[in-house]
Amino acid sequence: MGIVSRHDIEAAAARIEGRVRRTPVIHLEKTAFGLDAEISLKLELFQHTGSFKPRGAFNRILAAKVPPAGVITASGGNHGQAVAYASKVLGIEAEIFVPEGSPPLKAERIRRYGAAVTVTGQYYDDAMDACRERAVETDALLVHPYDHPDVVSGQGTVGREMGGQLPEIDTVLVAVGGGGLAAGVAAWYRSERRVVAVEPEGCAALARALDAGRPVEVSVGGIAADSLGARQIGDVPFEIAREHVAAAVLVSDEAIIEARQRLWDRLRIVAEPGGVASLAALLSSAYVPAPGERVGVIICGGNTASLPDPPP
Amino acid sequence: MGIVSRHDIEAAAARIEGRVRRTPVIHLEKTAFGLDAEISLKLELFQHTGSFKPRGAFNRILAAKVPPAGVITASGGNHGQAVAYASKVLGIEAEIFVPEGSPPLKAERIRRYGAAVTVTGQYYDDAMDACRERAVETDALLVHPYDHPDVVSGQGTVGREMGGQLPEIDTVLVAVGGGGLAAGVAAWYRSERRVVAVEPEGCAALARALDAGRPVEVSVGGIAADSLGARQIGDVPFEIAREHVAAAVLVSDEAIIEARQRLWDRLRIVAEPGGVASLAALLSSAYVPAPGERVGVIICGGNTASLPDPPP
Repeated sequence: MGIVSRHDIEAAAARIEGRVRRTPVIHLEKTAFGLDAEISLKLELFQHTGSFKPRGAFNRILAAKVPPAGVITASGGNHGQAVAYASKVLGIEAEIFVPEGSPPLKAERIRRYGAAVTVTGQYYDDAMDACRERAVETDALLVHPYDHPDVVSGQGTVGREMGGQLPEIDTVLVAVGGGGLAAGVAAWYRSERRVVAVEPEGCAALARALDAGRPVEVSVGGIAADSLGARQIGDVPFEIAREHVAAAVLVSDEAIIEARQRLWDRLRIVAEPGGVASLAALLSSAYVPAPGERVGVIICGGNTASLPDPPP
Repeated sequence: MGIVSRHDIEAAAARIEGRVRRTPVIHLEKTAFGLDAEISLKLELFQHTGSFKPRGAFNRILAAKVPPAGVITASGGNHGQAVAYASKVLGIEAEIFVPEGSPPLKAERIRRYGAAVTVTGQYYDDAMDACRERAVETDALLVHPYDHPDVVSGQGTVGREMGGQLPEIDTVLVAVGGGGLAAGVAAWYRSERRVVAVEPEGCAALARALDAGRPVEVSVGGIAADSLGARQIGDVPFEIAREHVAAAVLVSDEAIIEARQRLWDRLRIVAEPGGVASLAALLSSAYVPAPGERVGVIICGGNTASLPDPPP
């Protein structure tokens, strides 16, 4: 059955029901992006806090016994917002360690949800080190951004929802940072559909791990690093991805920028760079669908402070 | 049966099938905007060209015999883009008269669809006068932005789609400019659901017409004037609205600005001012739903050049 079963994802869906939005899908005509494939977008960026992250956060917290000290995590962005939001809704304490390089917009939103924010360390890993030390001190529940079966099961509910909304799909394109969403979706589809993982060239944690046969440290950079920049793929996601991810492809920053522009130009949807890596794979031919192939593309984040420039 | 029947809207839907997108709806939790009502948004801003307008444009053009000179219209914005887009798709000529005060972004998009653009006259009416003169000269088909049964039937397909997507609805909130969309939706629901028309205080063409018992000229201004600023409600929309619109309410520019901010803050959806007038009515209590009332809100346009400011 693996680390995360379909049953785990069903249980997660029941657990977080009413806490997360069922996000819509939209079917695109072939002329939208000039591809001879049937493209549908899963608009998960309209989820609470602007990304898929509340699914995993709610599931992890609701499945655990939360101590009086509440929950704690390190995140420069979307996961931090999700944990802060879930904690506010559930009426528990939350403490979030944010690295210094995080976008001010995201840190500000974390504060607005009422969480205690500590800005510390240059990079994510430094913030996570500080978070782990503090967790030992306070006994708060550490809600990892991706490397926990309950987090992965929660993110897997995106796959479950797509299964109902797009039953006829051949392929799913999904972005990878630490691997929680991609692993959750792959654990749902269990190789019955082709799940293609997409990473920016500057954040290739899964691709390098698949090459090495195990999670390895990678350097992190580029335009989508604030949401997809994990230094190492999670152990839990890796085990699932190794079995159920059909391919891992890379996209350039230019391809991500263009995908953002084209999504805005053709649909008036504003995504963040990490949120359109999946679409960038399609538009830049990093993934080339067969004629008539039915492709579901997960647009997973919308936390940006600017509209895209007009398309070229 | 009235000027536009349900049968006309069914015929329009069949005619434009495959030319327009079936836009998604999203159900909101009660906490989203702090209202004790069941709110669903019809995300028509993700339609081709960023507004509902292609529905009416395609239906009008496909129902007519288009002369060799093609089609012609006057529009500073969304309707012009829609006619230009439909003409490009259908391979016919299009000439669009744009008033001088139009947002450059919209005129530029009209050009990009390959239409001939003539910028003339200070206000919309002046551009329409020039357009009518030119239409006599060239014999092109005039595609009116709202005052034609085929245009209204086309816009009515938004109501038909909502009927399928949100069968359990009590009330629909819809913005009014010249009245094409509101009349189309009202003609679909035929008073079986409560259709509430929403206008900015500065563009109250329907409210004034209902007061007067006939279409009357109004002054036009405010933040949403570029999309909702009709000097007079159309005769065709008025006849339908008089019979099937349950109420016409007004919203301030401040309410529109706040609705735009909150839609972005809570959902990461970017609408144009005219596109959120409907939501503004709900958030500003211009329309107050009963506890548990199921309200469908049409978000009808996304053609903006800026993200909203952060919410207050």
